[in-house]
Amino acid sequence: MAQHTRAPQIALGQMNPAVGDFAQNLDTIIDLARRARVNRAELLALPYGALTGYPLGDLPHNAGFVRATQNAIRALAQRLESEDLADLPVLLAHDGPATNRGDSGQVSEHIFLVHAGEATQILPSDQVPSVECGGLHVGILTQTALTPRFISGSDLDLFLVLGAVPFETSGPQLTAEALAEAAQIAGAPLAFVNLVGGQDELVFAGGSAVIDAQGKLLSRAPLFAEHLLLAKVDATGDVSPEEPEIAQIYRALTLGLADYVAKNGFTSVVLGLSGGIDSALVAVIAADALGGSQVHGIGMPSPYSSQHSRDDAADLARRIGANYEEVAIGGVMEAFTTAMEMPGVAGENLQARIRGVLLMAASNVSGHLVLAPGNKSELAVGYSTIYGDAVGGYGPLKDVYKTGVWALARWRNTEAVDRGEVPPIPESSITKPPSAELRPDQVDQDSLPEYHILDPLLREHIENRAGRAELISAGFDAKTVDWVLRAVQISEWKRRQYPIGPKVTARSFDANRRVPITSRWRDSEDNDV
Amino acid sequence: MAQHTRAPQIALGQMNPAVGDFAQNLDTIIDLARRARVNRAELLALPYGALTGYPLGDLPHNAGFVRATQNAIRALAQRLESEDLADLPVLLAHDGPATNRGDSGQVSEHIFLVHAGEATQILPSDQVPSVECGGLHVGILTQTALTPRFISGSDLDLFLVLGAVPFETSGPQLTAEALAEAAQIAGAPLAFVNLVGGQDELVFAGGSAVIDAQGKLLSRAPLFAEHLLLAKVDATGDVSPEEPEIAQIYRALTLGLADYVAKNGFTSVVLGLSGGIDSALVAVIAADALGGSQVHGIGMPSPYSSQHSRDDAADLARRIGANYEEVAIGGVMEAFTTAMEMPGVAGENLQARIRGVLLMAASNVSGHLVLAPGNKSELAVGYSTIYGDAVGGYGPLKDVYKTGVWALARWRNTEAVDRGEVPPIPESSITKPPSAELRPDQVDQDSLPEYHILDPLLREHIENRAGRAELISAGFDAKTVDWVLRAVQISEWKRRQYPIGPKVTARSFDANRRVPITSRWRDSEDNDV
Repeated sequence: MAQHTRAPQIALGQMNPAVGDFAQNLDTIIDLARRARVNRAELLALPYGALTGYPLGDLPHNAGFVRATQNAIRALAQRLESEDLADLPVLLAHDGPATNRGDSGQVSEHIFLVHAGEATQILPSDQVPSVECGGLHVGILTQTALTPRFISGSDLDLFLVLGAVPFETSGPQLTAEALAEAAQIAGAPLAFVNLVGGQDELVFAGGSAVIDAQGKLLSRAPLFAEHLLLAKVDATGDVSPEEPEIAQIYRALTLGLADYVAKNGFTSVVLGLSGGIDSALVAVIAADALGGSQVHGIGMPSPYSSQHSRDDAADLARRIGANYEEVAIGGVMEAFTTAMEMPGVAGENLQARIRGVLLMAASNVSGHLVLAPGNKSELAVGYSTIYGDAVGGYGPLKDVYKTGVWALARWRNTEAVDRGEVPPIPESSITKPPSAELRPDQVDQDSLPEYHILDPLLREHIENRAGRAELISAGFDAKTVDWVLRAVQISEWKRRQYPIGPKVTARSFDANRRVPITSRWRDSEDNDV
Repeated sequence: MAQHTRAPQIALGQMNPAVGDFAQNLDTIIDLARRARVNRAELLALPYGALTGYPLGDLPHNAGFVRATQNAIRALAQRLESEDLADLPVLLAHDGPATNRGDSGQVSEHIFLVHAGEATQILPSDQVPSVECGGLHVGILTQTALTPRFISGSDLDLFLVLGAVPFETSGPQLTAEALAEAAQIAGAPLAFVNLVGGQDELVFAGGSAVIDAQGKLLSRAPLFAEHLLLAKVDATGDVSPEEPEIAQIYRALTLGLADYVAKNGFTSVVLGLSGGIDSALVAVIAADALGGSQVHGIGMPSPYSSQHSRDDAADLARRIGANYEEVAIGGVMEAFTTAMEMPGVAGENLQARIRGVLLMAASNVSGHLVLAPGNKSELAVGYSTIYGDAVGGYGPLKDVYKTGVWALARWRNTEAVDRGEVPPIPESSITKPPSAELRPDQVDQDSLPEYHILDPLLREHIENRAGRAELISAGFDAKTVDWVLRAVQISEWKRRQYPIGPKVTARSFDANRRVPITSRWRDSEDNDV
């Protein structure tokens, strides 16, 4: 890296905190401060929520949480002092109690400068608040304040953005473009430090970056990993290469699962392995996140399960080094139907629900987290059995359409081949027609439109909020549109009870969509009064 | 009612719309307009969401929904004209697309005056917008705009508030006080028209009212029923009497369930009857909401179920005229434990989960809505079996503490006796020690603090956001506090998957509380770093 004398070296501490784990988050910050100092950085900027975790929901309304946050900030100032790091300015921010009006249900952004043994809150103001650093005036912002009106017309030398931007498809590129535009509007270099890691239904992507006043990318940290980015604001530095989008999605899913497991105190997972593509991909993601030995697959064949599916399930477990056992459910099915008659769909759901009971029992006995294999296409149209295949604490594919499941599976297998490894997913799990195998010779397309039609339709409807008229204008068949829109509406109650899963699209069910369960609204021809 | 010549007669149309059912909501409005005209009212004010339902979530971002709303407003103007009601000004409001900036995830309040065949949108402004009516200047507001700063210093003759205030304990009294204060600040009479009816996790209470400029209540509509309140703003009118709080809560639960059932196209419900107080109260509420013949109770005894519990369940069903059958689960338990070993808590959960499977099968076969009997105390500390007793589409007691369940049961029985009817709930269901009966001689207090301690503690923690320090200062035992706070935190993942239920407290899990699932925050002695 070229050495300049005028502009200061800054350090962006792209870190992965845990919500409410003040002791561990503080240790991470101290470690970053040590490394920043060794590398002669003149300030350390931390992402939004570095000390508290993010997002916090209502926690900032809890008096105990607020006291613990204040104590942790004081402890940070003391630790920096006792480690001889007190002259390194550290900038951090997080949600705190509303600064304006008591308990209004709102939270406020609290920004702090910790320096020389003191923690000073940087209060909101009409102008961008700033600190002096190496002779430069450095403006301190959160991403919500990064509006053209707020940042233009200032005479600051550098803008530091303390960010917490969750991953979504194309999100890192969009963030980079937005930052470049902001730097040009501000007429000054801009340094953006992002959170990384999974927190409930969000996966923070990292990708912290420094951009010059002309909007040119100078330095960029990797995605999906903790990293201390050391950079000058007037010189090109390290730029981590970009991975293709499908690799980013896979890494987001893997990090999301790994962090959900670790941060909730689990070490292992259990899931039903049907031989189908959804459970296969979830198992491979889990093996990549936790190691195959921490993954427990259970095959639960019914009289309708095909031998090839049973073979595929066992084959998959072997390939990824997962534990595998089979528990046949025929006897339990018989006991249930002896107790109560269950014709038709009741009988189909019964098989899925028996499997759900067995998975939860395995979890109760061994402490494994249960993973739900459902994908976004199935959940959108309600093609899953609530309390059956929908049981679990976390659903890794909840925001991945079925065609995306196949694409990820193929990509992961190709990656393995490129590395000279055995492809983890049996080819027949990818190529065979998808089936829930709840009755003889059943396939998904008995009940659903072909996925190559269903998925683009759902994407337009959910991500782009296209209604019936827009979908038909876009060329979708009216009958298919009507079936899908109705199916999406009437399955809202099931989605509400589904486990959380990582957001990877622009509009996930967990993070970005809110519709009533009780609704007579049908976007159909005859809705006009 | 005294007749005055100067002040106009106004009509407040307290109505119960269904979300997205424009045709039916429009019919209701036309009917109210006819009755308002017959009674010589000079304007008709409707509650917030009268035409669209409320709340709508993201629906106002859907282009089709926006078009249907616009068409419905036009249709309203035409219907009023064709029925010779065009000269009756009708005021209504609802959520629509953001008026400021495109699809920002926000919605805006849209207010309309429909008059003389035209629908005119009343745009937001720095001052209270007004219409002229019977020579008076009438200001039109929603409840969110009812702030002292906005309403003071105007020279309007009357304020009309188009409201949508959900029920909560003491809520109607608090609303009445706030309206009286607002009228005094405004220095003018104030008419408030409220929604009524259940919509997902909310029950709108009605209680529309007219208050004079001195804050005195002139007229009030009943709670929990549709009503056209005809009133003058300078004369005392009809004032519906207030019921005691416990009666209000019972009516909120009954209306919430009745509307969830009807608006989602169900006609009947099914639930497990254990002989315990929770399922007994839910069955009675359901019988009051739908009629006993629409209630299907299933007793599902295990080898651990006591004979007195089985008798109580059958007795309850007889008293309320519900359908009742018994399905013994011993055989299914045996089939499961033959397939997989299930010691300890896995075996206890198994019984609850078998019952869940049977209830869902009964629902699949007969189309009944499954009701979950869990109360707020159990859900708060995770004392329920996910996918077991937690299955269902709606949980009537989700926001009622256990001590509240007993109080409601006693109140309902006393009411029956006062009316000369058979008390619906067997006395022993109320008086016996609460037990999940998942192992021999088990009672709740083996695992939980006594409910008369647990419930006040939970109320302080959840409703008033008291943390550990505040709870101990208030006199709660430190060990109990630590146990409860930990139990509340680690069961968040289960609450997220629980069916929705009606809000009756100031802070329900569904409507008013948002905490992370993944959280290492423990409000304990040693949380400081």
